Amino acid sequence: MGKSLERLSEMAIPDKMMAIIKTEEKRGAEYRETNVPAIGPNDVLIKVRACAICGTDIHIYQWNKWAAANMRKAFSGLPRIMGHEFSGEVVKIGGNVGKVKIGDRVSAETHIACGQCYLCRTGNEYNCQQLKRFKDGIFGEYAVIPEYSAEKLGDNVSYEVGALMEPFGVAVHAVGKTAPVGDTVAVIGCGPIGLLMIKVIKAMGAAKIFASDISDFRLNLAKKAGADVLINPSATDPVKTVRDATDGLGAGHVFENSGNVKAAKQAFELLRRCGTMVMTGLPSEPLVLDAGSDIVWKGAKIYGSYGRDNFTTWELAKGLLDSGKVEIASIITNRFEFKDYREAFDVAERGLSGKILLIP
Amino acid sequence: MGKSLERLSEMAIPDKMMAIIKTEEKRGAEYRETNVPAIGPNDVLIKVRACAICGTDIHIYQWNKWAAANMRKAFSGLPRIMGHEFSGEVVKIGGNVGKVKIGDRVSAETHIACGQCYLCRTGNEYNCQQLKRFKDGIFGEYAVIPEYSAEKLGDNVSYEVGALMEPFGVAVHAVGKTAPVGDTVAVIGCGPIGLLMIKVIKAMGAAKIFASDISDFRLNLAKKAGADVLINPSATDPVKTVRDATDGLGAGHVFENSGNVKAAKQAFELLRRCGTMVMTGLPSEPLVLDAGSDIVWKGAKIYGSYGRDNFTTWELAKGLLDSGKVEIASIITNRFEFKDYREAFDVAERGLSGKILLIP
Amino acid sequence: MGKSLERLSEMAIPDKMMAIIKTEEKRGAEYRETNVPAIGPNDVLIKVRACAICGTDIHIYQWNKWAAANMRKAFSGLPRIMGHEFSGEVVKIGGNVGKVKIGDRVSAETHIACGQCYLCRTGNEYNCQQLKRFKDGIFGEYAVIPEYSAEKLGDNVSYEVGALMEPFGVAVHAVGKTAPVGDTVAVIGCGPIGLLMIKVIKAMGAAKIFASDISDFRLNLAKKAGADVLINPSATDPVKTVRDATDGLGAGHVFENSGNVKAAKQAFELLRRCGTMVMTGLPSEPLVLDAGSDIVWKGAKIYGSYGRDNFTTWELAKGLLDSGKVEIASIITNRFEFKDYREAFDVAERGLSGKILLIP
Amino acid sequence: MGKSLERLSEMAIPDKMMAIIKTEEKRGAEYRETNVPAIGPNDVLIKVRACAICGTDIHIYQWNKWAAANMRKAFSGLPRIMGHEFSGEVVKIGGNVGKVKIGDRVSAETHIACGQCYLCRTGNEYNCQQLKRFKDGIFGEYAVIPEYSAEKLGDNVSYEVGALMEPFGVAVHAVGKTAPVGDTVAVIGCGPIGLLMIKVIKAMGAAKIFASDISDFRLNLAKKAGADVLINPSATDPVKTVRDATDGLGAGHVFENSGNVKAAKQAFELLRRCGTMVMTGLPSEPLVLDAGSDIVWKGAKIYGSYGRDNFTTWELAKGLLDSGKVEIASIITNRFEFKDYREAFDVAERGLSGKILLIP
Repeated sequence: MGKSLERLSEMAIPDKMMAIIKTEEKRGAEYRETNVPAIGPNDVLIKVRACAICGTDIHIYQWNKWAAANMRKAFSGLPRIMGHEFSGEVVKIGGNVGKVKIGDRVSAETHIACGQCYLCRTGNEYNCQQLKRFKDGIFGEYAVIPEYSAEKLGDNVSYEVGALMEPFGVAVHAVGKTAPVGDTVAVIGCGPIGLLMIKVIKAMGAAKIFASDISDFRLNLAKKAGADVLINPSATDPVKTVRDATDGLGAGHVFENSGNVKAAKQAFELLRRCGTMVMTGLPSEPLVLDAGSDIVWKGAKIYGSYGRDNFTTWELAKGLLDSGKVEIASIITNRFEFKDYREAFDVAERGLSGKILLIP
Repeated sequence: MGKSLERLSEMAIPDKMMAIIKTEEKRGAEYRETNVPAIGPNDVLIKVRACAICGTDIHIYQWNKWAAANMRKAFSGLPRIMGHEFSGEVVKIGGNVGKVKIGDRVSAETHIACGQCYLCRTGNEYNCQQLKRFKDGIFGEYAVIPEYSAEKLGDNVSYEVGALMEPFGVAVHAVGKTAPVGDTVAVIGCGPIGLLMIKVIKAMGAAKIFASDISDFRLNLAKKAGADVLINPSATDPVKTVRDATDGLGAGHVFENSGNVKAAKQAFELLRRCGTMVMTGLPSEPLVLDAGSDIVWKGAKIYGSYGRDNFTTWELAKGLLDSGKVEIASIITNRFEFKDYREAFDVAERGLSGKILLIP
Repeated sequence: MGKSLERLSEMAIPDKMMAIIKTEEKRGAEYRETNVPAIGPNDVLIKVRACAICGTDIHIYQWNKWAAANMRKAFSGLPRIMGHEFSGEVVKIGGNVGKVKIGDRVSAETHIACGQCYLCRTGNEYNCQQLKRFKDGIFGEYAVIPEYSAEKLGDNVSYEVGALMEPFGVAVHAVGKTAPVGDTVAVIGCGPIGLLMIKVIKAMGAAKIFASDISDFRLNLAKKAGADVLINPSATDPVKTVRDATDGLGAGHVFENSGNVKAAKQAFELLRRCGTMVMTGLPSEPLVLDAGSDIVWKGAKIYGSYGRDNFTTWELAKGLLDSGKVEIASIITNRFEFKDYREAFDVAERGLSGKILLIP
Repeated sequence: MGKSLERLSEMAIPDKMMAIIKTEEKRGAEYRETNVPAIGPNDVLIKVRACAICGTDIHIYQWNKWAAANMRKAFSGLPRIMGHEFSGEVVKIGGNVGKVKIGDRVSAETHIACGQCYLCRTGNEYNCQQLKRFKDGIFGEYAVIPEYSAEKLGDNVSYEVGALMEPFGVAVHAVGKTAPVGDTVAVIGCGPIGLLMIKVIKAMGAAKIFASDISDFRLNLAKKAGADVLINPSATDPVKTVRDATDGLGAGHVFENSGNVKAAKQAFELLRRCGTMVMTGLPSEPLVLDAGSDIVWKGAKIYGSYGRDNFTTWELAKGLLDSGKVEIASIITNRFEFKDYREAFDVAERGLSGKILLIP
């Protein structure tokens, strides 16, 4: 536990540190020395304790089409440190910082809302029109984030779990769009977000959870997370399976995380009339629906969801974790030291994993 | 006004009546004599005072592909009287009828919920799994409906307006999915449902209403109904127009009634982040969306809507009409006697009309 | 389990049965023979398997002031069989009955909505203006209820649990007014309804549940049901206890079931700003509030709740039970045979019990 | 209109100004010279164009018991300039100010949320635990407010209307707790807040608005604002009147602004079952309710409301005003120059007024 770690005095902060750095617009990254970053008046410097690999990080590592299309701007000034999901200890604070103290154990909200646009003013900071992200990544021994982003961890929450708070918030935010108590739920796509959703859905009293994924490895993780019925669409028809198990009604609540357009279309078909669909998956292909049967006649309620509802989601997520009512550490399947980052990304690319941690 | 009409005694009900009847699975209908229908113990017999032509009636009249695909079952026992939107006076009641009295001036709910399925039990009668419609149509001098369907008209509501209550309810139901007060709204498709929506949206205090239709005739009706900005997508880009007029935000609430998939895609694009889309249009082609930008990243809320929320919608609709706060008679552009039904359908097919009435 | 019981053929239904009957407007009841009740065309006859004693039954047994004021009308035609919470097997059905079959294992909705008043039409059947209850009670070997009231039990649900479905529905309905996931909750009053609430609140993922009651016996049951912090207001200040444990904020969700006006006032004081209060308790004394600090400045959301939301609540309740996600049998603390009804009421009056069953 | 006013250059800001100042903890105030206030880095200096007198100002002017109890802290450092509702032109901005520009025509949010407490983090800034108000009042020729508070006026909105934005926001926030479209509404207490509510309720499509006040003068203003039925409880029973006009149901939505506990109790009695009560009135006496009939059996939904939902309310209020869909200038009944402030407060105390403006 972080609390037992020796407190770093400011004097002990070195000038140089090791970090996993994207250096070129091509596959891969480098683990090398760089400067410990400087902080501005509204920033805090964190001694990084645990990092997690996100799907976005895999895209960036591969520098595939998606990365080239969506990440070129963020990574315009290469070299840039990779990563954004992490936890650590505050070791230095800027002059205007008031809420956060040196020694605080923190995780981080990675979406920085402007607070002044129409979306921010009307309670939708999470979809801020000028949303910013960290200036630099956090796969290093130290990281700088604005005070805005620093979220204290509960005393019972380990640094490893702290590194999962950001994706856990994605799941909490999405599940919070509906109320699955006593009802049937289908989770389409059981990567780390889907697994975390299952944990939350189960904690909210769902009667039956269907989990669908093309990976039996991940379905097994889904089962451990609390899913009642496992569906591998390679072998079984998800629409028929869900309908047969629900008196032909379909699932009352469906979470589409796969980003696969065929799976997404099926997700609509297995949704119960007047049911609720929450979509987090980002397909690279067009989604083709039958507006009549999938939406209008179905009386469907469909919600797009991403990020976290700053900061309602954090309060909920902390409430679930601090109280011990939800356990999320078990979705961590692999831990690697920074220096073994290549191996970590290899595992991540194979998809035979839950959440993968990188430890400085 | 119906109240001044002479009350029909039961003895005065004839054996025969004239009606507009679908006789064959091909274009057209006949106006001819038929039996006044018999009533069962839970039914009421109505002296029909005014009927309205719905889009479905046009399909059936034409007996086009859609009709053949969707109406063959309902029209399996030809000949069958056409029509479902109407108003009239109750002239006879079945033995179990308690709520409705002879002499009542009524309109009719055309969707008959079973009351026992999961959807009915959980407050979604409108999407009943065993939803039934009238056994026979109502384009006749008399019509039989179950007591369940008979909805009394307020004293201030004319029979002509009574014939609009069913489509008005479609609009009230759809608009009730969101709360447009003080906000910007786009109505895509300005047929009778769209026009009625504009009336309701305006009554609910919307700050600005954009109306889009490919017919300038209908846009003119939309303007009279209360639209602030008219868009003919043949001439103007709806997405750009709405965004330019909303500081780049898009409309906070969008109603897609066109059933045109290109218009529907644009509807998603002109929706503001975290905005609400209500879909009532039934395209015959696939709807192609970009799940990321249209739903997930947009944080969109999307609701399919059809029919009326039995009977919350009726109470709302009556509240709006009885109080005189909303006026809907002005969407009636044409009135025809039953015998001139061919002319009525001709006008309806040309689309240069609001609502068309058929009067016995 | 009921399923293993021998099926009663209709011929086996006797003419006479034993029942617990209120015979006079004074304390007590009689256990004596009476006719097996006749059924109407919309009724079903139940072979009673398990009954539960409700607080109302205790009032009626005592025939105290409350009973005289509130129950005189229902009990105007004494003698009348007591009781309303029960389960059993359908042994005979009326001519119009369609949904329910002989042999069905059922519990019963005790509130019979008219289906036609404004409240029923607008989705609030539970608060029907013409709400009716059973014509006669059910503390007998057989009972007649309308088909409307008969609710099938899941295969995994025992008759004993079936007898708890009606009060369980009260808890499910009340808790469903809010969403306590990840948040702090206070349950004021831990009789059977409070205990069932704690089960549901826990199943919905509350972070911390405070339970308050003046009976340590019931607090002990509350602990077993899932409460995290126990408060006996005779010994401890509930307002201070809850505030101290919530960083001074108060509880986010408060359920007031005690019907004690002092406890109710404290319930408002320990509610967090912008928190949700659900009230089910029925005090006999006036409730005195400070409108400013308790409601207006607090931005409180307050919901009155009673009965069950016909029939959304039943679907939810069945979902929770059938899936095994919530267990409620453990709130049963005592079982008595019909003939020992005096002893059962003695125990009920002492308050040192959870739910008490009466078995034919 | 302010846009035609000559722009003040910063050089033209004088050192001294006239203001209405509370100098002692006793009845009255002084109109005298004082320094033009200095601004901090996050502040803006406003050339005041129009001010409005709030009920709180009357309390402070009288320095009655309420003021002594609630305002002693805010007015601890007398002398202090009075007032908080106003509009004006920005003439100077602090070094950190980014959103607001010199020359902006603004009104002001008077409640300053901390942004970091639990309430702020979970979307309830309006009920911030550390809510602050202006350091000094604004009944002067110039006023300093934080940039946070400055809200730009639409081009069509006059300074006089701008001075009403803060109380208009109170009405918009309160009415937004429910959706009165097509339904019956009772507004209890028709001071400026009640009158503004009636404007908003009417704009949202209510079917019938009942207005109750003990002043016939104010009832007449209520009628002009859009009320359909006027009730002076000195002469008429509000409960009977509302029930008789609603088929015995009561009003679906009730707004209690009177702060009179007898009127508030009646407000509960005239509320329909399952209806919505919004409370803004702040009685000095205890509110005595019958929890059973007023809340629990009624299935009431009760919301405390005050202030504005920063800043959703401002967007809604601006939407309503900028579009011209709601007109609020007509609730202004009196205008006084600063120097005639004694006369203004005399009129305000007599209650025979709508909103009273003070003009520098």
